[in-house]
Amino acid sequence: MGKTIAQKIFDSHLRDEPFPGTKVLDLDQVFCHEITTPIAIDDLVRLGKDRVFDATKVKAVIDHVTPAKDSKTAQQGKILRDWARRHDIQDFFDVGRNGVCHAIFPEKGFVRPGYTIIMGDSHTCTHGAFGAFAAGVGTTDLEVGILKGVCAFREPNTLRINVDGKLPKGVYAKDVILHIIGQISVNGATDMVIEFGGSVVEGFSMESRMTLCNMAVEAGATSGICAPDMVTVEYLWDFIKDEYSSKDAALKAFSAWQPDADADYSKVIDVDASQLEPLCTYGYKPDCVKPVREMEGERVDQVYIGSCTNGRIEDLREAAKVLRGHTIADHVRGILSPATPDIFKQANREGLIDIFLEAGYCVTNPTCGACLGMSNGVLADGEICASTTNRNFNGRMGKGGVVHLMSPASAAAASIKGAIADPRQYMQ
Amino acid sequence: MGKTIAQKIFDSHLRDEPFPGTKVLDLDQVFCHEITTPIAIDDLVRLGKDRVFDATKVKAVIDHVTPAKDSKTAQQGKILRDWARRHDIQDFFDVGRNGVCHAIFPEKGFVRPGYTIIMGDSHTCTHGAFGAFAAGVGTTDLEVGILKGVCAFREPNTLRINVDGKLPKGVYAKDVILHIIGQISVNGATDMVIEFGGSVVEGFSMESRMTLCNMAVEAGATSGICAPDMVTVEYLWDFIKDEYSSKDAALKAFSAWQPDADADYSKVIDVDASQLEPLCTYGYKPDCVKPVREMEGERVDQVYIGSCTNGRIEDLREAAKVLRGHTIADHVRGILSPATPDIFKQANREGLIDIFLEAGYCVTNPTCGACLGMSNGVLADGEICASTTNRNFNGRMGKGGVVHLMSPASAAAASIKGAIADPRQYMQ
Repeated sequence: MGKTIAQKIFDSHLRDEPFPGTKVLDLDQVFCHEITTPIAIDDLVRLGKDRVFDATKVKAVIDHVTPAKDSKTAQQGKILRDWARRHDIQDFFDVGRNGVCHAIFPEKGFVRPGYTIIMGDSHTCTHGAFGAFAAGVGTTDLEVGILKGVCAFREPNTLRINVDGKLPKGVYAKDVILHIIGQISVNGATDMVIEFGGSVVEGFSMESRMTLCNMAVEAGATSGICAPDMVTVEYLWDFIKDEYSSKDAALKAFSAWQPDADADYSKVIDVDASQLEPLCTYGYKPDCVKPVREMEGERVDQVYIGSCTNGRIEDLREAAKVLRGHTIADHVRGILSPATPDIFKQANREGLIDIFLEAGYCVTNPTCGACLGMSNGVLADGEICASTTNRNFNGRMGKGGVVHLMSPASAAAASIKGAIADPRQYMQ
Repeated sequence: MGKTIAQKIFDSHLRDEPFPGTKVLDLDQVFCHEITTPIAIDDLVRLGKDRVFDATKVKAVIDHVTPAKDSKTAQQGKILRDWARRHDIQDFFDVGRNGVCHAIFPEKGFVRPGYTIIMGDSHTCTHGAFGAFAAGVGTTDLEVGILKGVCAFREPNTLRINVDGKLPKGVYAKDVILHIIGQISVNGATDMVIEFGGSVVEGFSMESRMTLCNMAVEAGATSGICAPDMVTVEYLWDFIKDEYSSKDAALKAFSAWQPDADADYSKVIDVDASQLEPLCTYGYKPDCVKPVREMEGERVDQVYIGSCTNGRIEDLREAAKVLRGHTIADHVRGILSPATPDIFKQANREGLIDIFLEAGYCVTNPTCGACLGMSNGVLADGEICASTTNRNFNGRMGKGGVVHLMSPASAAAASIKGAIADPRQYMQ
């Protein structure tokens, strides 16, 4: 039988197979942020192994709490900063140059089709949008990755999801992935890679593909993955134009990371996108998904637009389209966190930041911030947030707080109404 | 003998004098923020006195940690928010509409010549720039103020400081007040009101006068105060134009708050502004002041431009003039916190936000943030920050951190050099 994208990446990066089915892969990139990496750094220092396998393949960013909110987070930043300097890690993004890891690393061209990538962060699967195998790992794997440039994985089974049909107005990649998680449940892809395909995915921008892959982990998947195509080439072209004679040549090279027609999928699911409508979550698991329509009128105290899921320029554009000419409800706190400085600048050039400010939003610097309840928008007990983020776990954005996940357009609509609202009413 | 401004305000607001020299004054405004007021609210509720003397004279803002950084600060915000709603306090500024209290309250026209104002915040003296008596108070005084609209003060002695001469290039209100504190020491005005006058103060904008009065407390003063004049009228005109037939009529009315020519000053100090140069602090007290020149080359890790001292539009303009066309040093984190949403929007219209972003600054939403080490830029142990804020106390911006206070222009220069630097080298 043929191979899936993940199998091809595994084959090409196989260093060793100490036990049947346990594959030790060479890593192309090890990504680091200031919450999980300092623990690994301290460990390596303690073990007398304060080394880095290849400083050009290690990228680091301060993104979770930035600028630091207290002495502890200031110290975490300092550990990462000192380590990056000590090992001459050139691609270190400090306060002012920093953004959400899963937004800024692709933006800087660090992710390529066929790459293997690890990071001590569960949403590392985002980078699969480029046809890479990218997975979140724990501290021990991260330490080995930093030191040796390898990581062990089980041979991945692949769940293929074909999304076809025409996306209705007001329905976005976020709605597609919420629908999928709602269908297959939070365990539906455990220990699998989800390979997304079909005409809708092929029609998606890289930003939308990242939204899709970002939440693969919420269905239990090790990674999401999309086949690279001309959209991928176009996104990366500025970074790869010296490596390929033309975009077609790049596309041809990237075709090594297409799945075979007879690839060995564990399961195939077909989604008819034309049947979808704006969705959101209820309850405390990402598979608790309902049409926004059915939740309409439920009060929200805060609306958060940002994160590695939906803080990109495309997301800001869609939210701004809904917000233009509106003021948010008096009782609602609106928070916008553009995911990177370049997204912030681009949004400002396009007049989007002004639209958010005029609507009454608080525009923060780029940060992961409120998504995981660490800064910049933590909820108080009993408060409800409409959010473009990826997790609605109990207390995720603050103890006693409730999070409803949805698209940027739906979140913008909720901020205007002060309650969950169908975004289509604000669309011409 | 004649009266000082403060004495005139005391006379006009005297409700009672229970002991000789202890004056109970009627209050025109009680300002509130989310760090000190929730304690007072909880106390009043516990005592069965959950009332407000006059909801139109109480103004409240969430500014110290915004958006909330953790469950504790989220809860503090919620207490203030619920209280404002419960008592129909219309002028409550929540996330998105909020800014640093001592910047947003004047901006909204809440401060007038002759007013008496209290707040549970030591830099309440800022509002004296309008010819008001404005003082920071503790929880008990705040509770009484909220409940009864009165506050007891000792009869104030007045220290008159005349600032005359021509300010040299690169020297600002911040340098003037640092010079004064350096001369009279942190105890130099204890239990006194500092009345600022002279041709330099008369030539100052309201923004500069606020910078001056803001740091009066750093010399121990109860309040700073400037006589109202046409600059004051112009600043307030949009808010008072229905009350006065003309600006001249307003000026005439405000002249009630001029000091008498033979006012009874405890002490008079004359400052020759033409002798000043850019200044900054060293050590851990605001009276440890040196010329920037003598500190040149001292490494900084972070540069912070913002706060109730220097986060206003004028400050952003001066810093941006220095930064234009420059990139900040690689090892420096630059942080800009415009003090209010209107300042943010105005700075954006003028292209200033872009200048900061292009230079490599992190631009945060309006917040008190790092000034008092509570969020958005806390220092790690051993780190050094050049800051436009008002206090360099040991650990003020983070345990083990060092703060050098200076003007926005000097801070901008430090961010370019990565070390303390004379701003005049970046001025045409």
